Amino acid sequence: MAEPEAKVRLFVEAALAPGAEVALEREQAHYLGNVMRLGEGARIRIFNGREGEWIAEVAGSGRKVGLRVIGESAPQRLPPDLELLFAPVKKARTDFIVEKATELGAARIRPVFTRYTNAERIRPDRLRRIAIEAAEQCGETHVPDVAEPERLDRVLAAWDEGRKLMFCDETRVARPAAEMLADEAPGAWAVLIGPEGGFAPEEAERLRGLPFVRPVTLGPRVLRADTAAVAALTLWQSTLGDWR
Amino acid sequence: MAEPEAKVRLFVEAALAPGAEVALEREQAHYLGNVMRLGEGARIRIFNGREGEWIAEVAGSGRKVGLRVIGESAPQRLPPDLELLFAPVKKARTDFIVEKATELGAARIRPVFTRYTNAERIRPDRLRRIAIEAAEQCGETHVPDVAEPERLDRVLAAWDEGRKLMFCDETRVARPAAEMLADEAPGAWAVLIGPEGGFAPEEAERLRGLPFVRPVTLGPRVLRADTAAVAALTLWQSTLGDWR
Repeated sequence: MAEPEAKVRLFVEAALAPGAEVALEREQAHYLGNVMRLGEGARIRIFNGREGEWIAEVAGSGRKVGLRVIGESAPQRLPPDLELLFAPVKKARTDFIVEKATELGAARIRPVFTRYTNAERIRPDRLRRIAIEAAEQCGETHVPDVAEPERLDRVLAAWDEGRKLMFCDETRVARPAAEMLADEAPGAWAVLIGPEGGFAPEEAERLRGLPFVRPVTLGPRVLRADTAAVAALTLWQSTLGDWR
Repeated sequence: MAEPEAKVRLFVEAALAPGAEVALEREQAHYLGNVMRLGEGARIRIFNGREGEWIAEVAGSGRKVGLRVIGESAPQRLPPDLELLFAPVKKARTDFIVEKATELGAARIRPVFTRYTNAERIRPDRLRRIAIEAAEQCGETHVPDVAEPERLDRVLAAWDEGRKLMFCDETRVARPAAEMLADEAPGAWAVLIGPEGGFAPEEAERLRGLPFVRPVTLGPRVLRADTAAVAALTLWQSTLGDWR
């Protein structure tokens, strides 16, 4: 199959199969026609988060522009079963965490409110849009779910004990993350990153006492929440995930 | 010694010793007096990048506000001998790379122009200011140098062969970074991150042929340059640096 001419890669909701016609959102049509200046017949890559990546060609023009699916270019790839739980921080850094979690291959993103979380309202639909854009950019066929925000104590009360939780404990009395991970096996995991103010002492204590929790440190410096998220996901992916 | 009342931590250029008087820049005086509302006698933490962290108290007020050094609160800590070489990207992401490299404990930051680097002018003094702010935030006593930008080919021609270079090769035919690092020893190292467009084929080929270069991949997804920088520094610090 001919390579697409443009490096455009779009997420669409539609089912993908050879010959399928795919409608575009108004913004996507504008992007293809006016920003990238792609005309009828130009080929791009598309994915829907479920059925791999496909080549499609531009069909129609102007307000009636759509896509016609040609054929599959990459299979659907599922990321490892890794969730990121993070306490929302300021808007720009929250957006950044979602972008980076997508690039690094997290399967699911769960905002959690901790005792010291001090953040504006979280809109999962907006964060989902950021995850989609990051997946478009990084060539991923999976788009992480972004869950509704929940309180950490409720999340822990309902926890599936088959899933281990790497708890990034900024008080730094725990084992180095890489050392802990080297002793563990792949499987269902989550990473928990606290807010800029850290965890409340009683929260940290509760976490340390739970059988599925693995407290770790991320080095001798105080990392911002966004840095800690990237560092923790990187170490997990490199030791137990699909970077090996 | 009494703990400082405020969580303020400032970088100063002055030499630090008990009883020393430290002048403040106008912006710092404004921050202490008008933003943090600290009056005469309030205690803060200061560091100069060379002599550890010290407690100092506010002396004077208004335009004449300064600091008087009380005593040392933490020794100077030198980061491992790790340089970050990166191709400048857009301003916000370049700033982000400098902030994160400081948090993650890089000793020195070197902007390099590669064949596909497409960036605005780099101002090392502005990047140094960002590194100082990150060091103030993350509790680090070291502030990484930010070198003048240089062309990658010249940097490589003048390379000290005793320093190994972890080359993050986005073409993904190399070993996983964690696996390569596990076979190596600490010492003088550098990490090289390319621009968003990647390295030119002849650049990548030259790099792979150099005896001090260790080509690595950072997983199966295409990472943005800023993500790659954080991931690479994290893996190096966890395996050969001071996160162990």
